Amino acid sequence: MDDSKGWREILALTALKGRYCRYLDTKRWEQWRELFTDDFVSDTSAAGGRVITGADEFVRYLRATLGDGKTTVHQVHNPELALTSPTTATGVWALHDIVHLAPGLDLHGYGHYHETYDKHGDTWRIASSRLTRVREDIRTPLVSVRLSPRLRDAGAALARRSDR
Amino acid sequence: MDDSKGWREILALTALKGRYCRYLDTKRWEQWRELFTDDFVSDTSAAGGRVITGADEFVRYLRATLGDGKTTVHQVHNPELALTSPTTATGVWALHDIVHLAPGLDLHGYGHYHETYDKHGDTWRIASSRLTRVREDIRTPLVSVRLSPRLRDAGAALARRSDR
Amino acid sequence: MDDSKGWREILALTALKGRYCRYLDTKRWEQWRELFTDDFVSDTSAAGGRVITGADEFVRYLRATLGDGKTTVHQVHNPELALTSPTTATGVWALHDIVHLAPGLDLHGYGHYHETYDKHGDTWRIASSRLTRVREDIRTPLVSVRLSPRLRDAGAALARRSDR
Repeated sequence: MDDSKGWREILALTALKGRYCRYLDTKRWEQWRELFTDDFVSDTSAAGGRVITGADEFVRYLRATLGDGKTTVHQVHNPELALTSPTTATGVWALHDIVHLAPGLDLHGYGHYHETYDKHGDTWRIASSRLTRVREDIRTPLVSVRLSPRLRDAGAALARRSDR
Repeated sequence: MDDSKGWREILALTALKGRYCRYLDTKRWEQWRELFTDDFVSDTSAAGGRVITGADEFVRYLRATLGDGKTTVHQVHNPELALTSPTTATGVWALHDIVHLAPGLDLHGYGHYHETYDKHGDTWRIASSRLTRVREDIRTPLVSVRLSPRLRDAGAALARRSDR
Repeated sequence: MDDSKGWREILALTALKGRYCRYLDTKRWEQWRELFTDDFVSDTSAAGGRVITGADEFVRYLRATLGDGKTTVHQVHNPELALTSPTTATGVWALHDIVHLAPGLDLHGYGHYHETYDKHGDTWRIASSRLTRVREDIRTPLVSVRLSPRLRDAGAALARRSDR
């Protein structure tokens, strides 16, 4: 590989994982599907899940499970990326994810994605992903029962206005 | 653009957003102002806010709203950066922000900054920023009512000592 | 320095901090030790801690304090990295860390690592690290007291299965 172009590969791999999180959390399923190789393998068995083979099956499963109305947040950190050939790469990403389980009840998970990537033409895709967990918390973030609706709305509006 | 120098632009754009968060949360308003172009546009309308034009006005507004005594945390993740010309770039960053609303009452927000950057001389600045939200939570993080002050202080001191 | 290779140094420094967090949270103490220079200096005095000199002493102290059974999460963000010579670099990282203090009692900290790095041969190591804090929260994330064990297990299992 032309060493002086390697930063472009890292930039693309970083954006790939960024889009993985963003399209998943904004429910852009068709665009999300395009981020995986056709024979993508997801392995969440070490985190209590199972192995799913095939990007179509994986997207179908996630879409059915998380639904279009279920709020999720996936944020990734601390990348450990490596280019292993001109068309292959590996990466480890720390994950903080929030899955809304029920009204006032969320799961906050912390762990790591261990992944491989393939480049076809100019496009990098996720070829495999294995999830391990450091911890999982059940939290009740919404304290609307403790707040008057008026105060909560006022607080949220204030924060929205002031937030950048 | 000399392709072999592109990594320096990405490094600078990444540090720019790092400083945006750090100077904002540590209330270094004068240094924070220097991170924006004079005609910077902030658009938080999709997140319940409004459009503010001009870096001076934007900094004045944020400083007045968040105040010098109000604790905030802004952490950004999952960058999707692209160099669009030798002096322009775009970026999407996932955001987790915490705004202290009142004693024992915080807003935790999750969303995305959609931004443009301009380079003048050797310096990149933020030219525009649009905020979208995935979710917002109101939380009561401080459980001092449930902890004796002695236990809380001991716990915080222990964690401080042990934390790296 | 050959400018076209700089992206490799940034990649290595980023992975170094990624491993710092991952090996710490997964208790891989021997591998963690290898990430520091022998004369590494840790300074958490601005965050209520103290100065520790020497990587062996630092690792021994952290291992004794955090223990092998104590769950921690360290996630870093917003890097401000700079190459200051072919064999030295500096970096600022935003930190979110969670330290389990007692059953149902966690400390969530937010702050910044201010660090220096040295390169010996092909390997970058952390030479010094100073921690500053923006805020610290005590939280009670586990609401098992409010959930029936059956519901909690079902929720966790669902989230594990559905999570990617």
